[in-house]
Amino acid sequence: MKVEVVAIGTELLLGQIVDTNSSWIGEQLALAGLDSHYQTKVGDNPARIEEVLNLALSRSDAVICCGGLGPTQDDLSREVIATVMGAELVLDEAIAARIEAMFSSRGRAMPRNNLRQAMVPVGATPMAQQPGTAPGLVCPVGDKVIYAVPGVPYEMKQMVEGTVIPDLTARSGQSSVIRSRVLRTWGTSESALAELLAERIDHLDDGGNPTLAFLASGVEGLKVRITAKAPTEAEAIAILDAEEATVRPILGDIVFGLDDQNMEAVVISMLDERSMTVAVAESLTGGYVAGRLCAVPGASRVFQGGVVAYQPRIKFELLGLAEGPVVTEAAALAMAHGARRELKADIGLATTGVAGPDEAEGRPVGTVCLAVAGSMAERAVTVQLPGDRERIRQFSTITLLDLLRRELLAGELA
Amino acid sequence: MKVEVVAIGTELLLGQIVDTNSSWIGEQLALAGLDSHYQTKVGDNPARIEEVLNLALSRSDAVICCGGLGPTQDDLSREVIATVMGAELVLDEAIAARIEAMFSSRGRAMPRNNLRQAMVPVGATPMAQQPGTAPGLVCPVGDKVIYAVPGVPYEMKQMVEGTVIPDLTARSGQSSVIRSRVLRTWGTSESALAELLAERIDHLDDGGNPTLAFLASGVEGLKVRITAKAPTEAEAIAILDAEEATVRPILGDIVFGLDDQNMEAVVISMLDERSMTVAVAESLTGGYVAGRLCAVPGASRVFQGGVVAYQPRIKFELLGLAEGPVVTEAAALAMAHGARRELKADIGLATTGVAGPDEAEGRPVGTVCLAVAGSMAERAVTVQLPGDRERIRQFSTITLLDLLRRELLAGELA
Repeated sequence: MKVEVVAIGTELLLGQIVDTNSSWIGEQLALAGLDSHYQTKVGDNPARIEEVLNLALSRSDAVICCGGLGPTQDDLSREVIATVMGAELVLDEAIAARIEAMFSSRGRAMPRNNLRQAMVPVGATPMAQQPGTAPGLVCPVGDKVIYAVPGVPYEMKQMVEGTVIPDLTARSGQSSVIRSRVLRTWGTSESALAELLAERIDHLDDGGNPTLAFLASGVEGLKVRITAKAPTEAEAIAILDAEEATVRPILGDIVFGLDDQNMEAVVISMLDERSMTVAVAESLTGGYVAGRLCAVPGASRVFQGGVVAYQPRIKFELLGLAEGPVVTEAAALAMAHGARRELKADIGLATTGVAGPDEAEGRPVGTVCLAVAGSMAERAVTVQLPGDRERIRQFSTITLLDLLRRELLAGELA
Repeated sequence: MKVEVVAIGTELLLGQIVDTNSSWIGEQLALAGLDSHYQTKVGDNPARIEEVLNLALSRSDAVICCGGLGPTQDDLSREVIATVMGAELVLDEAIAARIEAMFSSRGRAMPRNNLRQAMVPVGATPMAQQPGTAPGLVCPVGDKVIYAVPGVPYEMKQMVEGTVIPDLTARSGQSSVIRSRVLRTWGTSESALAELLAERIDHLDDGGNPTLAFLASGVEGLKVRITAKAPTEAEAIAILDAEEATVRPILGDIVFGLDDQNMEAVVISMLDERSMTVAVAESLTGGYVAGRLCAVPGASRVFQGGVVAYQPRIKFELLGLAEGPVVTEAAALAMAHGARRELKADIGLATTGVAGPDEAEGRPVGTVCLAVAGSMAERAVTVQLPGDRERIRQFSTITLLDLLRRELLAGELA
């Protein structure tokens, strides 16, 4: 059963709205085990909408057509779908009454325009869900089908969950499910990761189930996604478990978390288990490390606070650094100890470096010194990071927290 | 000149990533006055990528193909484009050397996989911009063209701005341009804004040029976008100027900036003009205000640093608050003065409040106290903000900085 998504709206092509609807629908199709090979965006032009719908019907079994069901002249989906079906549009009195009732319940008269929304191609069936004024329509075309749903996200979602997915599942007669698991890693490049897993991927390519894919996600880490397809959820999860057990020993300690578990959640949880508290001193990250840490649910047992020492003066006055260069491992360590001391935490973290646009202290943009300090041990590294200010900030943060994670695993910090 | 966008990647179809690249490219095409009628997403499957590229070339003059230029086996764009061109792939020694140099500058050996990225179809030209390891390629197909750009947003954007748009403009020899201007506002709701401008929008609807649209953008403010189309840039800008002159008096002082000028850039620039410095004390925003301020180019003349006083203890010890409740305007003012004093700045800013999930000090989630303090005046407000932790953080930050903006305009702070 192949399903594709067509999103209608000139504003999508102009980039005035990001098409999150198609992404969400794509995810629902994948979770239901339905194949989806194409997604198309097309503007509010009847000839082009018709062309796109006909192409989609020619290569897929079902099309979800999202948007263009509003009350205005540039809402064209109803008319075009009727043309594709070779059917007339007729007024559906029940829908007209329902729309009129919505307006009168809010003490308003229905604008005449909204009657357009009650026009239904002969042979199409309105969907039961109708949270707004736009009805969704199930429109058979030969042995295939177009589902017309509105572009308003919460209306669309009710109809896709309530009608489209169940109808597709019934039509497909299948019951297979797709499930994914993400291993989050830090400490190697995407291509080095691909080399580590090359043999495993070659091996899997024969069968295609499960599959492995990589995704670089900034401060969220470098993700390895395992995807499995099986007749039941239990079998899909068994495949994921087996693949995770195969892949983990290959990846080793670069794996820091699973699925939604990001680096800050991992270190907060490790610190919490050890009843340890943490404070940060930040220069080039400017509060980003603190912000990431305190966004973790439950951070308040662990995270004390931080000092954003953007001006060197504050490093000397508030954190007690000796005056001198501030982009060095020694300065990072002194900042980390300053944070520990001044904010009374077990562990201090620090970032200092050159965020750009100009070099500083003779060191190039992207030079970053990171430090972790405890009562028993300390550790600093210097890294050279690529990218713009935002990327340097994200990479510095996850690299610093990964350093903390490794030191906590080693167990000698405090 | 018709241009379409093809985004490559199974993860886009599965909804694991939202395709913001195509939206951004669509916006650049519109701004350059280039027509764009279709955008397609297709997975990592060579036959389907080839089919989509051929279809796009059959109905458009140029295709921007985004993604699939990475170093791994499932990065297929180079191979498929070579097939569509009817050309061989050959190793480009200059690109290979450039990629190798990127790795060695970070003290690492280039994985063999990355050599795949130096393969170029005969007849294609690498783009001058190459911020990452993936080169962009200009690939002629008869009198049409495919632009291959990577899926990593900041790499893609440099290439689209630096090569693709100028090349398309040169090829099109066209003259009509679309220009937009954004008035950024803060201090009223989207529906109140729509009511303020309802009469003006009705008036414009007859002609359709310029157009007005609204966009709520979190910490970036509530945007009013004016869009004008004209034969020349000068005429388009004249239309924008006239419309801005009409709309500004209607909106009044809720307009804080234009286009890319966000609230933190506005206040940094106002402080810089007045030779004033600023420091922050943050509780529920956890470093977010500091991070936004220090991301502004030129912030270093103005922004001193901050204290993230996540635990109440740090408010008492580091910022000198009297022990007692911390979600009050008095506490916010004491924090703002503490930041001024301890970080030696002219102006102190502070946030304290209830980020959730639970209420605190008997005040509900979303209660936020914000303060601005100078040597001559101080001001605090309490606001009740909607949404989740992230939205509360964003709204607190822009509301606090807007408070500072209004106090600077009043001119009595210091």
